[in-house]
Amino acid sequence: MQLKDYFPMWDKLTAEQQNKLSEDADRRVFKKGQIVHNGLTDCTGLFLVKSGQLRAYIVSDEGREVTIYRLFERDICLFSASCIMRSIQFDIAIEAEKDSDAWLIPAETYKSVMEQSAPLANYTNEIMASRFSEVMWLIEQIMWKSFDRRLADFLLEEAALEETEKLKITHEAISNHLGTAREVVARMLNYFQSEGMVKLSRGRVELTDVERLKKLQ
Amino acid sequence: MQLKDYFPMWDKLTAEQQNKLSEDADRRVFKKGQIVHNGLTDCTGLFLVKSGQLRAYIVSDEGREVTIYRLFERDICLFSASCIMRSIQFDIAIEAEKDSDAWLIPAETYKSVMEQSAPLANYTNEIMASRFSEVMWLIEQIMWKSFDRRLADFLLEEAALEETEKLKITHEAISNHLGTAREVVARMLNYFQSEGMVKLSRGRVELTDVERLKKLQ
Repeated sequence: MQLKDYFPMWDKLTAEQQNKLSEDADRRVFKKGQIVHNGLTDCTGLFLVKSGQLRAYIVSDEGREVTIYRLFERDICLFSASCIMRSIQFDIAIEAEKDSDAWLIPAETYKSVMEQSAPLANYTNEIMASRFSEVMWLIEQIMWKSFDRRLADFLLEEAALEETEKLKITHEAISNHLGTAREVVARMLNYFQSEGMVKLSRGRVELTDVERLKKLQ
Repeated sequence: MQLKDYFPMWDKLTAEQQNKLSEDADRRVFKKGQIVHNGLTDCTGLFLVKSGQLRAYIVSDEGREVTIYRLFERDICLFSASCIMRSIQFDIAIEAEKDSDAWLIPAETYKSVMEQSAPLANYTNEIMASRFSEVMWLIEQIMWKSFDRRLADFLLEEAALEETEKLKITHEAISNHLGTAREVVARMLNYFQSEGMVKLSRGRVELTDVERLKKLQ
């Protein structure tokens, strides 16, 4: 994965702009569980994910979390460079969910090219619109979907990402993704188990009836 | 209010770009309650609010609503031109909350100038980031704020916007703003009344103890 693979409009940049981005880009490696970015004051730059998986989330004053979106191979993480735009007025934290490898483009470098280049600015617009769409989807989930459906969604998504129906995940991790109290997660998982849809053991959730979970969605 | 008053980077557009935007811009007038824009398929263009008040909201399959943000004088309504970006994949509806007056720039006109002009593309980024910040704020409210605080917030905001503590507003309108069932709104308003914070009558909510409502926030 080279830099140009992340930017479909790469050929519309001048040679000078291409060089600036390429020369300033740096490789970064993150261990699973490592914090990649933490809030508004931390303006590292843009991460371009080469491999692995990142999770963007928000944290309440009381320390409760909710996952906003995830980033995979080929995704660009814009909000770790929130200082490139004045109007970004919210704190997002980002952690590595798997061992991850990324390019880092420093915020200042990206900003200076974006200010000159209409193609890059327009592409940045597309990236932001795409995250915006994910956040609007999340609002609809929170407002209008009952918790059993959200939990079934989440378990099926995890199984697809991990390529296994035997998930290694704690109740706490699930509650941090969905922004729901741990007891609520535990109660619903117990209900799913009593209905034969999952089998629970310490730190594990095995999906035993995928078809029924899909019907809940 | 002229077109250039909406765009702080107007002077960085070429004369040709300025003319294209100005010549294609059109005046639109909306009556209170009128639908300005409805969902993804309807790609009218950008509205630049001259006067009045617009409300952007989403609607569930069952017809439940929740207000996403509001637009006032000098604001630019971007998502009524969602076709200018491929990555906008969500439906927003917009209605006039007061008699309103706006400039309309057709989507195609705006898109063609934005594709050429880095300053306009970057400014569009700022507009989107600013709406993004409002939506993130809303998620925090929904996830972490109890309903009594959200309702107190809403009543105080309405009083500030309407410049009166005697609000003409139905329970249904409040429930459409906050995305909460009408019975929940009615129950909390009755509780506020029993505590002397509001006085209720048909289609009206009078704030009788602003200080206590503020303490709830």
